[in-house]
Order: sequence, then C-alpha cells, then structure tokens
Amino acid sequence: MNIEILCTGTELLMGKVNTDDAYLCERLLCIGLAVNRVITVGDSKSEIKSAFEESVKRSDIVFTVGGLGPTFDDLTREVVAEALKKKLIFNREIMHQIASHFAARDMEMPAVNDRQAYIMEGAEVIPNKTGTAPGMIVQYGDGKLKKMVILLPGPPSEMNPMVDDYVMKYLKKRYERAIIKTTVLHVCGLSESAVYEKIRDIVDSTRELDGNELNFAMLASSSVVQVKIIGKGADELLIDSIMGKTRQEIYDRLGNDIYGENDDTLEEVIGKLLGKKKLSLSLAESCTGGMICDRVTNIPGSSIYFKQGVVTYSNESKIRLLKVNEDTIKRYGAVSENTAKEMAVGVRKLSGVDIGMATTGIAGPTGATEKKPVGLVYVAIACEKDVYCREYRFTGHRLAIKEKVTVHALDFLRRILGSGLDM
Amino acid sequence: MNIEILCTGTELLMGKVNTDDAYLCERLLCIGLAVNRVITVGDSKSEIKSAFEESVKRSDIVFTVGGLGPTFDDLTREVVAEALKKKLIFNREIMHQIASHFAARDMEMPAVNDRQAYIMEGAEVIPNKTGTAPGMIVQYGDGKLKKMVILLPGPPSEMNPMVDDYVMKYLKKRYERAIIKTTVLHVCGLSESAVYEKIRDIVDSTRELDGNELNFAMLASSSVVQVKIIGKGADELLIDSIMGKTRQEIYDRLGNDIYGENDDTLEEVIGKLLGKKKLSLSLAESCTGGMICDRVTNIPGSSIYFKQGVVTYSNESKIRLLKVNEDTIKRYGAVSENTAKEMAVGVRKLSGVDIGMATTGIAGPTGATEKKPVGLVYVAIACEKDVYCREYRFTGHRLAIKEKVTVHALDFLRRILGSGLDM
Repeated sequence: MNIEILCTGTELLMGKVNTDDAYLCERLLCIGLAVNRVITVGDSKSEIKSAFEESVKRSDIVFTVGGLGPTFDDLTREVVAEALKKKLIFNREIMHQIASHFAARDMEMPAVNDRQAYIMEGAEVIPNKTGTAPGMIVQYGDGKLKKMVILLPGPPSEMNPMVDDYVMKYLKKRYERAIIKTTVLHVCGLSESAVYEKIRDIVDSTRELDGNELNFAMLASSSVVQVKIIGKGADELLIDSIMGKTRQEIYDRLGNDIYGENDDTLEEVIGKLLGKKKLSLSLAESCTGGMICDRVTNIPGSSIYFKQGVVTYSNESKIRLLKVNEDTIKRYGAVSENTAKEMAVGVRKLSGVDIGMATTGIAGPTGATEKKPVGLVYVAIACEKDVYCREYRFTGHRLAIKEKVTVHALDFLRRILGSGLDM
Repeated sequence: MNIEILCTGTELLMGKVNTDDAYLCERLLCIGLAVNRVITVGDSKSEIKSAFEESVKRSDIVFTVGGLGPTFDDLTREVVAEALKKKLIFNREIMHQIASHFAARDMEMPAVNDRQAYIMEGAEVIPNKTGTAPGMIVQYGDGKLKKMVILLPGPPSEMNPMVDDYVMKYLKKRYERAIIKTTVLHVCGLSESAVYEKIRDIVDSTRELDGNELNFAMLASSSVVQVKIIGKGADELLIDSIMGKTRQEIYDRLGNDIYGENDDTLEEVIGKLLGKKKLSLSLAESCTGGMICDRVTNIPGSSIYFKQGVVTYSNESKIRLLKVNEDTIKRYGAVSENTAKEMAVGVRKLSGVDIGMATTGIAGPTGATEKKPVGLVYVAIACEKDVYCREYRFTGHRLAIKEKVTVHALDFLRRILGSGLDM
C-alpha cells in the first residue's frame, strides 16, 4: 500500500516549520500504515494540481493538508475536485453548521465562508469541531483499484482532533494489518548520551521473535529524553511479551529517572501524587514568571490540589507578599538559596497549603553579575517538616532557561513527593 | 527558476518534525530564491531514486538533505551519482579531515566512515566543520540547460552552518536576481474570513509595477490572523514603494485591529506601551492559570513594568488575597463580571501598581453550569480612574481556551493602553 501526504501552503516554503505531516505520520503508524512520501507545495493552482495528479497515480491513499479555508489562496478543494472529475455540491447542513460556529461567537458569518459548504459529490464529511472547514473522504476508482483521497485543514488545532476523532477510526476499520505497538518512556535528569550509555546494549541489539521485532528511537527535547520502543509484527501476544520484558530491563537501568510513559506529563504525574497523598500545593515564581503555574493548571481538576500561585517579580513583592526577610535579600541577593527557601516557606504560609515551591534565578539576557551568571537558578520546596533546595546552572536564551527551570522544578517536586520522605 | 528540496530519512515519516526544509527555504528567500516544492522520502533506494529523478527533471536546482552519513541507511550519495551518471572518487584529503575529526575527540575512526570520503567527479566540496559528512555541489548539463544538485547532511547542527557559511555565498554570486521583501501584519479581534472580507479587493488584485509585483498570504492561528505582503522584483525602490502604499491601504481598512508587524508580539507591544506611559502592571489570573504572566515575563526587562502576578485558583484565595467580597462570589459566582472587576481592583491595590488585570472563566472540561458554559470568560482591567470588563465566549479544549483568553486579554489591555483614555 502506498500512502502520500500533500501539504499546501506558501508559508511552508517560506520558513514556517510544518508539524502536520509529522503528526499524521505518527498517528498512521500506530495502526500500521506507513507513509511513503510527503510533498509540500505553495498555494498555486498549477503546482497543487501537478503534485496532486502525480501523487494520486502512485498512491492508494492521498492525504491533502491545508487549503480548505475560505480565502483566495485556499485552492485544494477545487483542484482535487477538478482532478478527480467530481462536482462540488452546496451542502445546506454544512452551511448551517458554519453559520452556527459564527453565531456561537456572536459574529456574523462573512460571505466568503460560503465556499466551505461545498462538498465533493459522494464524499464523506469529516466534522470539524474547532473550525469552519469540514474535511472530506473521497473514494474513486473501481473494485481492487479503489483509491482514497482524504482532505484535511491545515491548522493543527483543527487537523489533529479530526484525525484522532474520525480519520483514525475510519482507516482502522478498513486497513489495519500489521500490529504496531509503541511505548515511550520519559526520562528527566539525564542527558541523551547518558541515557544512551546506560541502555546502549539494549537498544543496539536486535530483539526478534518469530518475525515480531522491536525497534528503538531516542529523542531529546526540553530537558526530557524520550526512549521509544516500537514493536511490529503479526502476533500481538508475542509483541507484548518482548516489549514488556524490554521495558522492564530499561526500568532496571534508569529507575526513578523515568517519570512517565506515553502521554504522561510531569504535571499530570505530580497531580496524581498530590491527589494520592491528599496534599495541596502553592507556587511562588520569580524567574519562571508563571510558566510552572501555567503547566500545573493545564491539568483538568488541578483546582483540587493547586490553591494559589504568585509571580513575585520585584524584590518588594517578595518581601511584602511572601514575607521574605529584607536582610536575606540584602545579604545573599534575590537569587540565592536563602531567598528561594524563604519564598517557599512564605507562599506555603500565605496560602495555607501543605507544600510551597519557589523559583528564583537569572533568566537573562540581563541581570547577571560577576558571581551570578545567567542561568543560575534556585528551586526550593517547603513542607511542614523540612525545606529542600537545589541549585541549577542552565544555558540558553531567556525562554529556553524558563522552560528548563520549569521542567526541572516539576521533576524535583516529583522526586520529593515520590521519595517517601516525611512531609 | 524552479528549486526543489528532497529530504531523506525514514524518521521523518515516523513522526519526527523536520526543520531543515524550513531553514533552507527561509535562507534562500533572503537572496530571492523561492523554493517550489519540498519532497520527503524514507531511506529506501528506489524511493529516493524515483523522487530524485522526477525532481531533477522539473528543477534548475535540487537540494538533497540527509543520507550522507556513514551507515547502511545513508544512500543519497550513491543514488545521486547513479542518476547523474557520475563516478564517486575516493578523496584522500577528505579522508584525512574525517580522521582528524575523530582524532580531535580522542576516538578511533570507525571503518564505515570511509564511505564519506567518496566525492562525485567534478563536484565542489562543501566543508563540514561540525560533522564528518562533506556536502557537494554538482553541476551537470550544458550551457543554458546547466543545472545544479547540492547535497547536504541532515543534522541541523551540520546543515545550518554549511548553508550559512558556504552555500549562501556560492548561490548569491551566481543567482541573486530578484529582490524579495516581506512584511507581516498581525491582526487580533477579527476572524480570518472577516479580515479577508475587509481587504479582499486588495489581496485579490494584481499589484505590479515594471515587473515588480506583490503577492499576499493569510494565516490564522491562536486567535491571531497574519497578513503577509510579499514583494518581488528587480527594483528595490519600486518594491518598497508599492509595498508601502499597499501596507497603508491595509492599515486604513483594519486600523487598530493590527497590533504589530513582523516579529512583534502582543506582550512586546504592551511592554512598549507601558514603558512609554510609565505605567506598572500586575495580574490576577484564574482560568488562565499563569499563562498571561508567563507571556508577559518572556520579554527581557519586563521587570521594569511588571511587578507581580497571582494565580488565584480557589475562591478562598480570591477572597483572602485579592479581597474579593465573599457576597459577590455567592451572589454572582466566581465566573462573573462583578468578580472579575473586584479581582482586578484587588490585585491593583495588593501590588500598589497603576493597572490591575484579572481573568476568570471556565476552561473546562468540567465546571460548567446550566447558565455558564465552558468557555465563558471575563477579563477586567482596573486603573485609577475606571474599571473595564469584557465578556467572551470561547470554544475548544482546556488548553485552547487558556490560550485564547490569554491572547484576547493581552489584546484588550493593548486597546485600553492605546485608546488615549484617562488612566
């Protein structure tokens, strides 16, 4: 089976990084469908047409991504209809849905959105719950030569849920053959090469049983290393067995440095630990500027354990709101272990919670002194029984440092919560 | 001139996001070379071969990215040589450079790296200072039909400096012709189609002067619509003139809905307005959970105007910290205009600043009531003279709603700051 993805959008040829193709490839792989080729062209009718016609000749399934919007440079719908010799038919129901989308926002529907209500004859409509452009699945050809074109909109906020909620189910029913299973282990606190050194003999070996085999991939980003185990074959039980065994071997090597699997996030893992221990949390952020609060509150139901956050950017607000001793800041500076600890203790008291966590550091590009470079950061965690603090030295630009502090602070909290220490 | 990029690498068809193509497109555009197509195939000899041969037929310049490594799945060098009927010749000097690369790292050169010392006959070598795979520029064909293939390695840490230090200079000498200039206008508060309605006649028209022409692109994401004006031609003065005139026409239509240009961000624009007016800001966030603080503190030097933020997730912290009246919450609910206003007034007083901004809303998926759906949000801004409040109704999942509120709250603040209202 040959599968291709045709992405359209002049911006993609002008420096914008495309993530749609990667997302779609990854999701398809989960049901054993491997993409053979991705093609990107601009919003030009002739370019889209020639790329689409070549792609259709080679492929059993062609995905088009982008060009379903309402404006002049959205051409995919028309080009595909013309190439497949299908009529575009006005669909009253879709028109009604688009109008409702605007009405729900107290907006009048612009006349140009009419275009999005035209559906190819015989096409199955893929509902778009987060935008106005419906997707389409078009079948053409006869019997064994039956082929398929799937049209999707470009914005990830629209494409991703349409793929997950509709396309995956549709294709799974028709095409799933080889079983592909993946497990991703998330590691924090070790570099990519340190992780590789520890599990090198495992990931470099061939693990195979009766034609069912394992492959590995490693990916590092934002202070997290992901180890991906990919099992492929015809026998689900055998795949599960070699994957389970291998997964355990990796756990034996990396232990507590693994914070989660697959869709797990640090903030989710922390939320579960806090829930299980019935502990409440508040945060005092300086150099992270609200990023940790933002991550923690991404979890639905976080209001049960997360009570309050403060972003104390000025010394004055550290002193007034968190009751950090003025002398501490004078003597040790705002970026110091002592200040971090008093901030953590202060926000714990201010909010009346079990755990207070605080960050203070120099995110740059300014603010460094001779003794305190950009990237110097302290994270403190105060509980009833004790106050813990760690010093970090990060590199990179302002946003990269903010993100590294956020990830390491969350990981520090995870380790404290999971340590069995008396809180 | 037709230019294509052929990326090879099975990982790119398995979910890894490609950034090489975007980097190369952006760099080439700076010297007026627009890429027509990007093709991605896996590490399969037949796939690379057919894609390359098609690409060469269509193009004046083909870039290949990836597949120059030393291992079995690095096939580009061989496939291109075969397709162009060029011999690969062992190059002693390159071999020596590769050996030195390993020696400098106290490592023995693995035997497989031999392969990287084979250079296509007649090729110009592109030195690789950060890795072992040299790049190549191969010319073929005659006279006016002379074409070019440029082979580059895949890792961005190798490809990017090779493009910047060598390829750009090489191409600039030979090809720079057209000047390309771009201006991006960022719009908030209007849907993509509403923007289109307003400027339809401008972007649908052909704007051309003595062979210098304008093109337009529109892109919507995260509550922001970008209108891109692309000027192309041989005469920089003429391009500047038609671009400037067109830019002004678009400003006349969209006015204050345009918040910035090119690299401007909302938080930067707000920072500048606050700085100019010498006003200080504090934030009280409920449904946005710290995301607005995070955005505001992304700006270096934001500590000058941003004093403090609080994430008051619980009713108790709204009452205790921000002095919201308990009765207000009882009577109108935590998600109401009254509560939002009291939060904004409260955080303004708590922090002793000029402006307090507050958000309260239902980010979902839980928390909705019969009268208050997920997505109902209030944003309030308190100054000395007045308190402003707006109600919004957003759709989408929890994170999308958080982001929409963040963008619209920042835009609301921008409009108030820019309004000339007595603060």
